[in-house]
Amino acid sequence: MDLKKYLLEKKLQVEAGLEKYMLQPDGLLARHIESMRYSLFAGGKRIRPVLCLAVSEALHVDPAPCLSLACSLECIHTYSLIHDDLPAMDNDDLRRGKPTNHKVYGEAEAILAGDGLLTFAFELLSSPTLQGNLTPDERLKIIHIISRAVGSRGMVGGQALDIDSEGKSIPYETLQYLHSCKTGALITAAVQTGAIIGHAAHSQFEALTSYGNQIGLAFQIVDDLLNVEGTTEQLGKAAGSDAELEKATYPAIFGLEKTHEMAREAVDGAIESLQEFDHHAEPLRELARYIYYRKN
Amino acid sequence: MDLKKYLLEKKLQVEAGLEKYMLQPDGLLARHIESMRYSLFAGGKRIRPVLCLAVSEALHVDPAPCLSLACSLECIHTYSLIHDDLPAMDNDDLRRGKPTNHKVYGEAEAILAGDGLLTFAFELLSSPTLQGNLTPDERLKIIHIISRAVGSRGMVGGQALDIDSEGKSIPYETLQYLHSCKTGALITAAVQTGAIIGHAAHSQFEALTSYGNQIGLAFQIVDDLLNVEGTTEQLGKAAGSDAELEKATYPAIFGLEKTHEMAREAVDGAIESLQEFDHHAEPLRELARYIYYRKN
Repeated sequence: MDLKKYLLEKKLQVEAGLEKYMLQPDGLLARHIESMRYSLFAGGKRIRPVLCLAVSEALHVDPAPCLSLACSLECIHTYSLIHDDLPAMDNDDLRRGKPTNHKVYGEAEAILAGDGLLTFAFELLSSPTLQGNLTPDERLKIIHIISRAVGSRGMVGGQALDIDSEGKSIPYETLQYLHSCKTGALITAAVQTGAIIGHAAHSQFEALTSYGNQIGLAFQIVDDLLNVEGTTEQLGKAAGSDAELEKATYPAIFGLEKTHEMAREAVDGAIESLQEFDHHAEPLRELARYIYYRKN
Repeated sequence: MDLKKYLLEKKLQVEAGLEKYMLQPDGLLARHIESMRYSLFAGGKRIRPVLCLAVSEALHVDPAPCLSLACSLECIHTYSLIHDDLPAMDNDDLRRGKPTNHKVYGEAEAILAGDGLLTFAFELLSSPTLQGNLTPDERLKIIHIISRAVGSRGMVGGQALDIDSEGKSIPYETLQYLHSCKTGALITAAVQTGAIIGHAAHSQFEALTSYGNQIGLAFQIVDDLLNVEGTTEQLGKAAGSDAELEKATYPAIFGLEKTHEMAREAVDGAIESLQEFDHHAEPLRELARYIYYRKN
């Protein structure tokens, strides 16, 4: 299959959805909404919503009526980037090749843009007019999975731990836990959301969760590798910044060669989780490989 | 009725709920969770959850099985205080007589404590083990009402507008809109949540919404008055700070006498909205009066 074409198609579908659902910048709140849109439409790969759609398709269910649920994942991802980039956090000036939100709109508005995007995600997830074909129980389950994944025992907790760990030498188990919270949890939640949209049977849900966990791990290991091996131009953000902040990373602990091996193992593990799935799961398998071979 | 006794009883009920549902500070995330708990248990009046419980009681429905829903409102309120106090926002050092979250835990953790509390609210609202006697549809409706109320067209948008308006002279209509977003929306949502828990009929839901809107307005007007007329000791936060920041406030626009009159009118309007309700709504009527006569 042509993964590049598939990814582009899905990305455009997600961006059309974001454009349709996202608030328009008019009236008194124009600047605030512009600020959210600035970061939301800064050109990401839309991996999380694309994963969600691809999982539903792997289960032979057309995800189009549930596009808003996939879009909510991108709102949450964007909020996390805006807050992570803040001066009090990672203090990054560049994101996706453009000035970070607080560089353009100021710190106060960047905090509020993040708050607004996170809250908007839950508005989308609970909207009575965007029901798709899901039951209210399935929709509540999705909201619960996502809120757990991105809260204090997930993404927010991972970021708190990351901030606490700067300049400290932390054990490997802590690093692994940190990354599984900070990056892995939302990726797994995206996969699980797609599984619920696709009405997965229990064993399918378990297999897909394992797939999500493994690609989440691969994703973070490769992020660490790119920060060492990539250029600022390729990444659209400052290369080498982890080393500068003395962050605990996979290459810092294991060296480059072993880290590459760990990334490949995670990808193989993810693909293995899908062995009961037919050719409709081919995009998921290709996506797992892509996570290792991507350049930004 | 003895409102003081009623408020204390309900406040203790809410605090027992928060203690029961809130995460415990152990393991790697201890500091992050301590920071959320520091602000959550800093001794607020718990007005929003108490309102939610009182509305359900006014509809002759015991709200106890839905305590977690009321508690989620306090998590959201606390998140908004932590973020509003940040150096990039209102830069407040004191809140409820104690150092603000960022003064104790630093800016990065204060941002994450707010993010964590907001997200935890949606985790509580969607929890499969805290269902009360509500249908999944009713629970989705509550999540949608709350997410709309506290998002960009509600609380977050109001704060964005407030920040934008500092040092500017803004028209009365803008001030009213700002306050209805920033403070009114969550108060009305608390009342509407109680109305859904109490299985309100359509006309009751409308009357209670009007009650919520009027007390929300009264609440903000009185907040402005207290900032002028109260002392730092009474308020537990810096008195006179609005004038210092050249904030647009009711007293700044209308003068003290007219502002007092407006507050009383809003309270009377709120009580009038409840005319079809029997004596079970007495706490709601007393609460409306209390909002005007409170000293902090």
